[in-house]
Amino acid sequence: MAEKTTEKETVKRKTEENVIFVGSKPPMSYVLAVVTEFNKGSSDEVVLKARGRSISIAVDAAEIARNRFVKNSEVRDIKIDTENVTSNDGKKHNVSSIEIYLSIKKENK
Amino acid sequence: MAEKTTEKETVKRKTEENVIFVGSKPPMSYVLAVVTEFNKGSSDEVVLKARGRSISIAVDAAEIARNRFVKNSEVRDIKIDTENVTSNDGKKHNVSSIEIYLSIKKENK
Repeated sequence: MAEKTTEKETVKRKTEENVIFVGSKPPMSYVLAVVTEFNKGSSDEVVLKARGRSISIAVDAAEIARNRFVKNSEVRDIKIDTENVTSNDGKKHNVSSIEIYLSIKKENK
Repeated sequence: MAEKTTEKETVKRKTEENVIFVGSKPPMSYVLAVVTEFNKGSSDEVVLKARGRSISIAVDAAEIARNRFVKNSEVRDIKIDTENVTSNDGKKHNVSSIEIYLSIKKENK
Protein backbone atom coordinates (compact mmCIF):
# COMPACT_ATOMS: atom_id res chain seq x y z
CA MET A 1 0.00 0.00 0.00
CA ALA A 2 2.73 2.39 1.05
CA GLU A 3 4.67 1.42 -2.01
CA LYS A 4 1.76 2.17 -4.28
CA THR A 5 1.41 5.68 -2.88
CA THR A 6 5.08 6.36 -3.43
CA GLU A 7 4.82 5.18 -6.99
CA LYS A 8 1.86 7.44 -7.66
CA GLU A 9 3.66 10.43 -6.23
CA THR A 10 6.69 9.75 -8.37
CA VAL A 11 4.56 9.54 -11.50
CA LYS A 12 2.82 12.77 -10.56
CA ARG A 13 6.05 14.61 -9.98
CA LYS A 14 7.52 13.26 -13.18
CA THR A 15 4.59 14.26 -15.37
CA GLU A 16 3.57 17.52 -13.74
CA GLU A 17 5.77 19.56 -16.04
CA ASN A 18 4.44 18.17 -19.27
CA VAL A 19 0.74 18.40 -18.36
CA ILE A 20 -1.28 21.10 -20.09
CA PHE A 21 -4.61 21.99 -18.53
CA VAL A 22 -7.11 22.91 -21.20
CA GLY A 23 -9.70 25.55 -20.38
CA SER A 24 -11.95 27.67 -22.56
CA LYS A 25 -9.38 29.55 -24.65
CA PRO A 26 -9.18 28.92 -28.39
CA PRO A 27 -7.49 25.58 -29.26
CA MET A 28 -4.43 27.34 -30.76
CA SER A 29 -3.40 28.57 -27.28
CA TYR A 30 -3.00 24.98 -26.17
CA VAL A 31 -1.39 23.92 -29.44
CA LEU A 32 1.28 26.54 -28.75
CA ALA A 33 1.76 25.12 -25.25
CA VAL A 34 2.16 21.61 -26.70
CA VAL A 35 4.73 22.77 -29.26
CA THR A 36 6.66 24.70 -26.61
CA GLU A 37 6.71 21.71 -24.29
CA PHE A 38 8.02 19.37 -27.00
CA ASN A 39 10.62 21.93 -28.07
CA LYS A 40 12.04 22.11 -24.57
CA GLY A 41 13.28 18.64 -25.31
CA SER A 42 13.06 17.42 -21.73
CA SER A 43 10.12 15.16 -22.49
CA ASP A 44 8.84 13.15 -25.46
CA GLU A 45 5.31 13.08 -24.08
CA VAL A 46 2.77 15.82 -23.41
CA VAL A 47 -0.56 15.31 -21.66
CA LEU A 48 -3.60 17.44 -22.40
CA LYS A 49 -6.15 17.43 -19.57
CA ALA A 50 -9.65 18.88 -19.78
CA ARG A 51 -13.02 18.73 -18.06
CA GLY A 52 -16.60 19.31 -19.20
CA ARG A 53 -17.12 21.51 -22.24
CA SER A 54 -13.36 21.97 -22.63
CA ILE A 55 -12.99 18.33 -23.67
CA SER A 56 -13.69 19.13 -27.31
CA ILE A 57 -11.12 21.95 -27.20
CA ALA A 58 -8.51 19.48 -25.90
CA VAL A 59 -9.29 17.12 -28.79
CA ASP A 60 -9.04 20.02 -31.26
CA ALA A 61 -5.67 21.08 -29.80
CA ALA A 62 -4.29 17.52 -29.94
CA GLU A 63 -5.42 17.07 -33.53
CA ILE A 64 -4.05 20.42 -34.71
CA ALA A 65 -0.72 19.81 -32.96
CA ARG A 66 -0.37 16.31 -34.37
CA ASN A 67 -1.44 17.16 -37.94
CA ARG A 68 0.23 20.50 -38.44
CA PHE A 69 2.91 21.37 -35.92
CA VAL A 70 4.48 18.25 -34.41
CA LYS A 71 4.15 15.87 -37.33
CA ASN A 72 6.31 13.19 -35.75
CA SER A 73 3.92 12.90 -32.81
CA GLU A 74 1.05 10.53 -32.27
CA VAL A 75 -1.79 9.96 -29.80
CA ARG A 76 -0.39 7.25 -27.54
CA ASP A 77 -3.40 6.94 -25.26
CA ILE A 78 -6.67 8.60 -24.30
CA LYS A 79 -8.38 8.16 -20.94
CA ILE A 80 -11.76 9.41 -19.84
CA ASP A 81 -13.01 9.59 -16.29
CA THR A 82 -15.60 11.21 -14.03
CA GLU A 83 -14.60 13.75 -11.38
CA ASN A 84 -16.67 14.89 -8.44
CA VAL A 85 -16.59 18.65 -8.33
CA THR A 86 -17.99 20.98 -5.68
CA SER A 87 -19.28 24.18 -7.21
CA ASN A 88 -19.25 27.61 -5.59
CA ASP A 89 -22.70 27.16 -4.05
CA GLY A 90 -21.51 23.97 -2.32
CA LYS A 91 -23.35 21.54 -4.58
CA LYS A 92 -21.54 18.42 -5.71
CA HIS A 93 -21.81 17.24 -9.25
CA ASN A 94 -20.03 14.94 -11.65
CA VAL A 95 -17.94 16.24 -14.51
CA SER A 96 -16.38 14.16 -17.26
CA SER A 97 -12.67 14.54 -17.87
CA ILE A 98 -10.22 13.51 -20.56
CA GLU A 99 -6.47 12.94 -20.71
CA ILE A 100 -4.82 12.85 -24.12
CA TYR A 101 -1.25 11.52 -24.24
CA LEU A 102 0.72 12.90 -27.20
CA SER A 103 4.08 11.23 -27.81
CA ILE A 104 6.94 11.61 -30.22
CA LYS A 105 6.98 8.56 -32.48
CA LYS A 106 9.84 6.24 -31.56
CA GLU A 107 11.01 5.57 -35.09
CA ASN A 108 10.11 6.35 -38.67
CA LYS A 109 9.50 3.37 -40.88
CA MET B 1 -5.79 3.01 -52.31
CA ALA B 2 -8.69 0.93 -53.60
CA GLU B 3 -7.97 -1.64 -50.94
CA LYS B 4 -8.14 0.95 -48.22
CA THR B 5 -11.58 2.07 -49.36
CA THR B 6 -12.89 -1.48 -49.34
CA GLU B 7 -11.55 -2.04 -45.87
CA LYS B 8 -13.22 1.09 -44.61
CA GLU B 9 -16.53 0.08 -46.12
CA THR B 10 -16.39 -3.33 -44.53
CA VAL B 11 -15.72 -1.86 -41.13
CA LYS B 12 -18.57 0.58 -41.62
CA ARG B 13 -21.04 -2.12 -42.61
CA LYS B 14 -19.97 -4.34 -39.73
CA THR B 15 -20.34 -1.72 -37.04
CA GLU B 16 -23.26 0.29 -38.38
CA GLU B 17 -25.79 -1.33 -36.08
CA ASN B 18 -24.03 -0.67 -32.81
CA VAL B 19 -22.86 2.85 -33.64
CA ILE B 20 -24.57 5.74 -31.88
CA PHE B 21 -24.08 9.17 -33.43
CA VAL B 22 -23.96 11.81 -30.73
CA GLY B 23 -25.38 15.24 -31.54
CA SER B 24 -26.44 18.11 -29.35
CA LYS B 25 -29.19 16.46 -27.26
CA PRO B 26 -28.67 16.00 -23.52
CA PRO B 27 -26.25 13.14 -22.67
CA MET B 28 -29.07 11.00 -21.20
CA SER B 29 -30.61 10.56 -24.67
CA TYR B 30 -27.46 8.79 -25.79
CA VAL B 31 -27.10 6.88 -22.53
CA LEU B 32 -30.55 5.44 -23.24
CA ALA B 33 -29.44 4.47 -26.75
CA VAL B 34 -26.36 2.72 -25.31
CA VAL B 35 -28.42 0.78 -22.76
CA THR B 36 -30.96 -0.21 -25.43
CA GLU B 37 -28.21 -1.40 -27.77
CA PHE B 38 -26.56 -3.54 -25.07
CA ASN B 39 -29.94 -4.97 -24.01
CA LYS B 40 -30.65 -6.16 -27.54
CA GLY B 41 -27.90 -8.66 -26.81
CA SER B 42 -26.71 -8.89 -30.39
CA SER B 43 -23.48 -7.09 -29.61
CA ASP B 44 -21.15 -6.72 -26.64
CA GLU B 45 -19.71 -3.49 -28.00
CA VAL B 46 -21.26 -0.09 -28.63
CA VAL B 47 -19.49 2.80 -30.36
CA LEU B 48 -20.28 6.43 -29.59
CA LYS B 49 -19.28 8.80 -32.40
CA ALA B 50 -19.26 12.57 -32.18
CA ARG B 51 -17.83 15.64 -33.87
CA GLY B 52 -16.94 19.14 -32.73
CA ARG B 53 -18.77 20.47 -29.67
CA SER B 54 -20.66 17.18 -29.29
CA ILE B 55 -17.44 15.41 -28.27
CA SER B 56 -17.90 16.34 -24.62
CA ILE B 57 -21.50 15.08 -24.73
CA ALA B 58 -20.25 11.73 -26.05
CA VAL B 59 -17.75 11.50 -23.17
CA ASP B 60 -20.53 12.38 -20.69
CA ALA B 61 -22.81 9.70 -22.17
CA ALA B 62 -20.07 7.05 -22.06
CA GLU B 63 -19.20 7.89 -18.44
CA ILE B 64 -22.83 7.92 -17.26
CA ALA B 65 -23.57 4.63 -19.04
CA ARG B 66 -20.47 2.95 -17.64
CA ASN B 67 -20.83 4.22 -14.08
CA ARG B 68 -24.56 4.00 -13.57
CA PHE B 69 -26.42 1.87 -16.11
CA VAL B 70 -24.15 -0.77 -17.64
CA LYS B 71 -21.83 -1.41 -14.72
CA ASN B 72 -20.20 -4.44 -16.33
CA SER B 73 -19.01 -2.33 -19.24
CA GLU B 74 -15.69 -0.60 -19.79
CA VAL B 75 -14.09 1.80 -22.22
CA ARG B 76 -12.13 -0.53 -24.50
CA ASP B 77 -10.68 2.13 -26.76
CA ILE B 78 -10.93 5.79 -27.72
CA LYS B 79 -9.89 7.22 -31.07
CA ILE B 80 -9.70 10.82 -32.16
CA ASP B 81 -9.42 12.06 -35.71
CA THR B 82 -9.91 15.08 -37.94
CA GLU B 83 -12.65 15.17 -40.58
CA ASN B 84 -12.87 17.53 -43.50
CA VAL B 85 -16.39 18.92 -43.61
CA THR B 86 -17.97 21.12 -46.26
CA SER B 87 -20.43 23.52 -44.69
CA ASN B 88 -23.62 24.84 -46.30
CA ASP B 89 -21.87 27.84 -47.84
CA GLY B 90 -19.39 25.55 -49.60
CA LYS B 91 -16.43 26.30 -47.32
CA LYS B 92 -14.25 23.41 -46.22
CA HIS B 93 -13.05 23.18 -42.68
CA ASN B 94 -11.62 20.64 -40.30
CA VAL B 95 -13.62 19.20 -37.44
CA SER B 96 -12.29 16.94 -34.70
CA SER B 97 -14.10 13.67 -34.09
CA ILE B 98 -14.10 11.00 -31.42
CA GLU B 99 -15.03 7.33 -31.28
CA ILE B 100 -15.57 5.75 -27.88
CA TYR B 101 -15.74 1.94 -27.78
CA LEU B 102 -17.77 0.64 -24.84
CA SER B 103 -17.52 -3.10 -24.25
CA ILE B 104 -19.00 -5.61 -21.84
CA LYS B 105 -16.20 -6.83 -19.59
CA LYS B 106 -15.16 -10.35 -20.51
CA GLU B 107 -14.96 -11.74 -17.01
CA ASN B 108 -15.35 -10.70 -13.41
CA LYS B 109 -12.36 -11.37 -11.18
